[in-house]
Amino acid sequence: MRWIGLEELEDIALGASLLGAGGGGDPYIGKLMAVSAVRACGPARLIRAEELADDALVVPIGMMGAPTVLAEKGIGSRDIEDLHEMVRELYGREIDAFLCTEAGGVNSMMPLTASARTGIPLVDADGMGRAFPELQMETMALGGVTASPCALVDEKGNRVVFRTADNHWTERLARAVTVESGGNVSTCMYMMDGRTCKRYAVLGTMSRCQELGRIIRAAKNEADPAGYFFRETGAFPLFAGKISDVERTVQGGFNRGAVTIAGMGDCQGQTARVVFQNENLAAWRGEELLATVPDLITLVDSATFLPVTTDRLKYGKRVLVAGLPCNPLWRTPEGLALVGPRYFGLDCDYVPLEERARRRDHV
Amino acid sequence: MRWIGLEELEDIALGASLLGAGGGGDPYIGKLMAVSAVRACGPARLIRAEELADDALVVPIGMMGAPTVLAEKGIGSRDIEDLHEMVRELYGREIDAFLCTEAGGVNSMMPLTASARTGIPLVDADGMGRAFPELQMETMALGGVTASPCALVDEKGNRVVFRTADNHWTERLARAVTVESGGNVSTCMYMMDGRTCKRYAVLGTMSRCQELGRIIRAAKNEADPAGYFFRETGAFPLFAGKISDVERTVQGGFNRGAVTIAGMGDCQGQTARVVFQNENLAAWRGEELLATVPDLITLVDSATFLPVTTDRLKYGKRVLVAGLPCNPLWRTPEGLALVGPRYFGLDCDYVPLEERARRRDHV
Repeated sequence: MRWIGLEELEDIALGASLLGAGGGGDPYIGKLMAVSAVRACGPARLIRAEELADDALVVPIGMMGAPTVLAEKGIGSRDIEDLHEMVRELYGREIDAFLCTEAGGVNSMMPLTASARTGIPLVDADGMGRAFPELQMETMALGGVTASPCALVDEKGNRVVFRTADNHWTERLARAVTVESGGNVSTCMYMMDGRTCKRYAVLGTMSRCQELGRIIRAAKNEADPAGYFFRETGAFPLFAGKISDVERTVQGGFNRGAVTIAGMGDCQGQTARVVFQNENLAAWRGEELLATVPDLITLVDSATFLPVTTDRLKYGKRVLVAGLPCNPLWRTPEGLALVGPRYFGLDCDYVPLEERARRRDHV
Repeated sequence: MRWIGLEELEDIALGASLLGAGGGGDPYIGKLMAVSAVRACGPARLIRAEELADDALVVPIGMMGAPTVLAEKGIGSRDIEDLHEMVRELYGREIDAFLCTEAGGVNSMMPLTASARTGIPLVDADGMGRAFPELQMETMALGGVTASPCALVDEKGNRVVFRTADNHWTERLARAVTVESGGNVSTCMYMMDGRTCKRYAVLGTMSRCQELGRIIRAAKNEADPAGYFFRETGAFPLFAGKISDVERTVQGGFNRGAVTIAGMGDCQGQTARVVFQNENLAAWRGEELLATVPDLITLVDSATFLPVTTDRLKYGKRVLVAGLPCNPLWRTPEGLALVGPRYFGLDCDYVPLEERARRRDHV
């Protein structure tokens, strides 16, 4: 067990936005929420998964909806209290630990906020090892954990409980409510026992975020900042350039679109294109595919290495495109069925990004 | 207490479709569901509101969605069982009586089906005295009863419970789920105690439906069928003619549109127009408004007096337009705020249809 105070929060939010792969919400908005909780109630309590009893009640908590809406609308002040009450009612017992649904600027902060506000610890883990746009995309689902019962609240005081035929129906029905409610809600789902969490969650995510955040902060003071950044984070450098076009729409509760990047430096004369649905889905250099989901594709500012989420893409911004291998659970046939390129409508097979890089080097 | 068997069912379904005011679903589809329940499990049990204990748990049960979809999709075989289980869980006690949410071809049959299948009685009453397109349009709402908690199920096995900030939010969120689920679901909401039911439900509706059904069946054998129909039902004859145009669309989970009727007989040379949103909202003869919500406007077949629901409007069909005064609760300022013409986007004040008729007679 260790305490997460304001300093740790900063790094976690920053690192999570790298794992957010362009999505997971604005780290600034997420951090505001967590900072105000820690200021008001004291630090959050982070425990390792091994500290969980096998029969512990572990409750993933997160936001659902379009990040652009969240930035305007904010988070309901009663959301966590309402969810806490609903889950206690659903299970007739107290929550033993919160869990991060996805590593991302906002959703990494939700369980920290919940922990600070309730005194209940959160597990050092998450359900994706990154961010994904749909809620059935949880590693726990691969272990048979169901989204149901799913508790959903909004800032108007509406509370909804879903028990659905399957996880895709939770996604569809909860998404419909999210859109009708204004585009953004808070949820608890994929609740599980401690034994399952230890086996099927992506372990160590919060600590990894904190370390990634430290690296991002440190990079700009290094002699070779970009070299340091890529070496220390383990990310692959996919492209470098200036944003020359952004297409964007909010559709069905998602931010969808594509960003075009005109190459600079080593990439001069080339063009890259990254398509996204909240998170970045695939990156091309010219006609060549560089990486696809479930691997992580994140744009970072060329000078500060701060991750640039898809809702903050701006014409003229200089960026590096970084690629990170996804958790091995996502590379299984079951994992790829859930979050592989074809699920997202991309007409290509999945090839690990390090394999794609190797092939390029050997041309 | 009295039993409702197959014969009583027939008349109730028929009479309810007159009170359905063009909506409330196809009486044939509704009846199929109730008939098969009574065949399988025996008759339903109808009790008068006065037989309810003051602390009885009274549970309105009905369908939500577009009637045209229901006709194609049918009703989930487990819907009633699922709702019964959910409500028992929500209240931690057995249901004492079901209540009809609205008089209409389908929704009048739901509580009868539920009663036959569960052995729990239904109250001789309903929540509208007619059918309306939105679920917050219940007389109980005027007595402070809230839609929450609202239990919703679909034929795929999805179960949703809403506890909303107000009744309009139940309508919005449940409607969003209804549309996403395919257009039609079953619900229990506006649950109340016996005392409230006796005071704020529209009492005697099921018996009234049965009597109206008997009148409709009898009319065609009378010497002056139309005279008999209007005299015995108490309906006002608003127009007679042949359907010359039907505009129709399914939008946001509703059947919306308008029907144009070319006058015949006394109405020769005139044209009537009726606009609807599941139910008929307003009727004009030329430029003159004949009736608006909350009064009932129902088209019936000129020869058989069978009510013609808005999903069964057909070019060339000969119809009579009948108007029935609504329940006095709807004519209060609170009632008109909920279901008056302006709520439905009509640019006119409410004038009771009998008052409009009087004015026409005095011109």
